[in-house]
Amino acid sequence: MMRFMGYFRSSSSYRCRIAFNLKGLEYDFESVHLKSGQQKAAGFAAVNPQKLLPVLITEDGQELYQSLAIIEWLDETYPDVPLLPGDKDLRAQVRAFAQVIACEVHPLQNLRVLQYLRADLRLDEDQVQAWLSRWLGEGLQACEDILQKRGGGSAFCFGEEPGLADLCLVPQIFSAQRFGVDISDLTRLNEIYDTCAALPAFAKAHPAQQPDFEK
Amino acid sequence: MMRFMGYFRSSSSYRCRIAFNLKGLEYDFESVHLKSGQQKAAGFAAVNPQKLLPVLITEDGQELYQSLAIIEWLDETYPDVPLLPGDKDLRAQVRAFAQVIACEVHPLQNLRVLQYLRADLRLDEDQVQAWLSRWLGEGLQACEDILQKRGGGSAFCFGEEPGLADLCLVPQIFSAQRFGVDISDLTRLNEIYDTCAALPAFAKAHPAQQPDFEK
Repeated sequence: MMRFMGYFRSSSSYRCRIAFNLKGLEYDFESVHLKSGQQKAAGFAAVNPQKLLPVLITEDGQELYQSLAIIEWLDETYPDVPLLPGDKDLRAQVRAFAQVIACEVHPLQNLRVLQYLRADLRLDEDQVQAWLSRWLGEGLQACEDILQKRGGGSAFCFGEEPGLADLCLVPQIFSAQRFGVDISDLTRLNEIYDTCAALPAFAKAHPAQQPDFEK
Repeated sequence: MMRFMGYFRSSSSYRCRIAFNLKGLEYDFESVHLKSGQQKAAGFAAVNPQKLLPVLITEDGQELYQSLAIIEWLDETYPDVPLLPGDKDLRAQVRAFAQVIACEVHPLQNLRVLQYLRADLRLDEDQVQAWLSRWLGEGLQACEDILQKRGGGSAFCFGEEPGLADLCLVPQIFSAQRFGVDISDLTRLNEIYDTCAALPAFAKAHPAQQPDFEK
């Protein structure tokens, strides 16, 4: 069976969990406690030199990391319930949307950056909050604008089935909520979030449903 | 002909230029002056709601953005001189390596973040330098460790032909040099950088060779 190393609150782990669930794939879960720094231990670094989550150990022992690369690998290896569209032009749109979140929003709010802001730069909580509001706000506004420009009003970001864009969006909105960033005016994103949240594949992947969940 | 909107110093534009060159593809170039904020103008935002470079306008008028999505689209549309390996397991490794740079290193050193550090957080230049050294140093060390773990000593990151990993790596090393981050001990990366720099496709894509280059 595949082995998945993640953490309940890591949004890149959350993306992968939704992908597993949408495809109905089982995996052994190993929690790596990010907040206490388990990802920096020598044993974990031997698996992923980048010392970040998530990691997928495939059935034949390959060590894969970076959530978007893992998800594309899952999609190519288990093509039932595709997460990327078959049309290459639409696929480029979906990948771009996922990358807006993975390359422009999430990197600025992940744990190691917030730790640096607080411990190294000694920012106070108002400054950290302003940082979060700026990057999450701007990034999710871009996501809203992209979908508004696309138009249509499909159930999910890019059609009538959930896919890569949605499984990046939902964890990012969860983070915005957790950090108290107000995105109530992003109507299209909130609509899609609600649609996703009602699906078992998304609900089961929620941080609060994970075995390593902590308040 | 395709139209490419970029900026000489933008490393995500630089990645795409190498891809065009490796595939021998021609394009009309439109410079968008990042430093003076042209990407925030209404005309550009109508093309890319994310207000970031690069953008590719395809021959049939589609507007594509996010460099990795553009490069995968180019690879699928013009499959000669492939930039991603045919084997799905190796493809996952190559994508992950590209994402280490695109999702973990580059987002922390791009122009809008450095502007925020200086203008909003009022960091002094020593603090900005420490920020750059931390994230570029840590990220490129991870890239080195990944390739050292892989072993082999191929000419390029993942084999004997340049591809997606190399065209992300070279602009990131260029940035490290520009920002004065010392990576002289990352022997494998420097070796690959030198091999790439000697190829016309990489040399022609260098910021100093672009029509909008400024000292």
